[in-house]
Amino acid sequence: MGRVTVRRRVLRVRDGAGSHRADTLAAEEPMEIRVGGRPLTVTMRTPGDDFDLAAGFLVSEGVVHKADDVAGIRYCAGATSDGGNTYNVVDVVLGPGVTAPDASLERNFYTTSSCGLCGKASLDAVRTTAAWSVAEDPLSIEPKVLTELPDRLRAAQKVFDSTGGLHAAGLFSVDGELLCLREDVGRHNAVDKVVGHALREGLLPLRETVLMVSGRASFELVQKAVMAGIPMLAAVSAPSSLAVDLAEESGLTLVGFLRGSSMNVYTGAERLQGVPAV
Amino acid sequence: MGRVTVRRRVLRVRDGAGSHRADTLAAEEPMEIRVGGRPLTVTMRTPGDDFDLAAGFLVSEGVVHKADDVAGIRYCAGATSDGGNTYNVVDVVLGPGVTAPDASLERNFYTTSSCGLCGKASLDAVRTTAAWSVAEDPLSIEPKVLTELPDRLRAAQKVFDSTGGLHAAGLFSVDGELLCLREDVGRHNAVDKVVGHALREGLLPLRETVLMVSGRASFELVQKAVMAGIPMLAAVSAPSSLAVDLAEESGLTLVGFLRGSSMNVYTGAERLQGVPAV
Repeated sequence: MGRVTVRRRVLRVRDGAGSHRADTLAAEEPMEIRVGGRPLTVTMRTPGDDFDLAAGFLVSEGVVHKADDVAGIRYCAGATSDGGNTYNVVDVVLGPGVTAPDASLERNFYTTSSCGLCGKASLDAVRTTAAWSVAEDPLSIEPKVLTELPDRLRAAQKVFDSTGGLHAAGLFSVDGELLCLREDVGRHNAVDKVVGHALREGLLPLRETVLMVSGRASFELVQKAVMAGIPMLAAVSAPSSLAVDLAEESGLTLVGFLRGSSMNVYTGAERLQGVPAV
Repeated sequence: MGRVTVRRRVLRVRDGAGSHRADTLAAEEPMEIRVGGRPLTVTMRTPGDDFDLAAGFLVSEGVVHKADDVAGIRYCAGATSDGGNTYNVVDVVLGPGVTAPDASLERNFYTTSSCGLCGKASLDAVRTTAAWSVAEDPLSIEPKVLTELPDRLRAAQKVFDSTGGLHAAGLFSVDGELLCLREDVGRHNAVDKVVGHALREGLLPLRETVLMVSGRASFELVQKAVMAGIPMLAAVSAPSSLAVDLAEESGLTLVGFLRGSSMNVYTGAERLQGVPAV
């Protein structure tokens, strides 16, 4: 695809004086995900690893769990005026016996059948759709290994350095080895790309791994980790309240403010070697 | 509601040694937006200014443009087991003659009728749904005023300091006066809250104003600014390619990397006093 970055002319202003220069931007394009030809969702993403993104999205939604659940993925060709392919529409063919997701609003995790919508309902929804539990995962990791992950993630980020505009998600082993890195303008997309890659390689659930994300940890990112069977999520910045609630309820270890030699452990501290449990 | 922050016990690890302490988290809860009783969408947001959020979301979707377009907004009471109100479901009653949005997937801005989905289609969709143009907005601003906005935004952020976990959107006058500030775990929600507040006050379109956001500038944020009639968007970090494309096509001035005394002007540089146009 080769559209991960885009060059633009920009006016740089410093102390009131302007000068023109070329700037590199992170590419953003819409991508429609179809299942069996039926439109399911549209996400704004950075082109690249699109099949991983589609597969990972379906893992997060609880539609697929293993490589065989996806029979095929292809770009949907052809309806532009010149007959070309925009490479922005991806169609996923599900494997035998896999139930297609409901493409209506009700497919949403959140119950819309009553006025009682609350955080608790969101937590319950994840519990009932997850194909496996991360609570019993035997991951045990040295805090020192964790403190090295942000630098390793950043060092591996190819596009960020040129654009300053991409989020990263990296999957690491218990020894701190980088297993998979993906970048995207959307943090949730970067995670879906990592998870989708693992699904297609037959690696789910991702036992005894750590998912490291740039930025913050939201409910959605914890949900994606749980759905992929990842027992630990580490973020450079703050988690939200519902992210911590879901991590606790799911038995996932949630680490935030991972910077320098320090971190905050919100849940599941027993997986960190040599520090007291919460 | 008073649920903007949540206190949690956390294990702080530094150089391998752990200590317990209390931590303040940014609250995140699902909110369902209904229109005339029909569910439209669910967003994960920080509670507070929920009616502004609902109204602003409908501005961004092109459903409402002026205060009279909203006849009323209320919390939907009562279906929890104890008969309580979760304050997480908001119902908007539209004014006379306002067409309710289509709650199906097709309500999406992005055309799903063909395989030709591309960035161009996204740009076209905004052009056809916007109620006014920002291209002719006479805004003219001193670069020095812009360089002061990040500090003013940060100084006004009440919750960020305690949690480190909230995005901010601030609406400023041409003199750098802060007109409205909103915080949220989601950057798009913070912008919707600002825009919804303005709608309900009868202030749309927001001519000759600047919208300043923490973090990055995506297509979605430029779209929201355009739909609210805001002629300038300034961000602390990088814009995406499609954000710049939409800004250019709409005649919006887009500023990124606004830090210290410098900034990058991607489009509409003629609105900055005393610097050459791109």
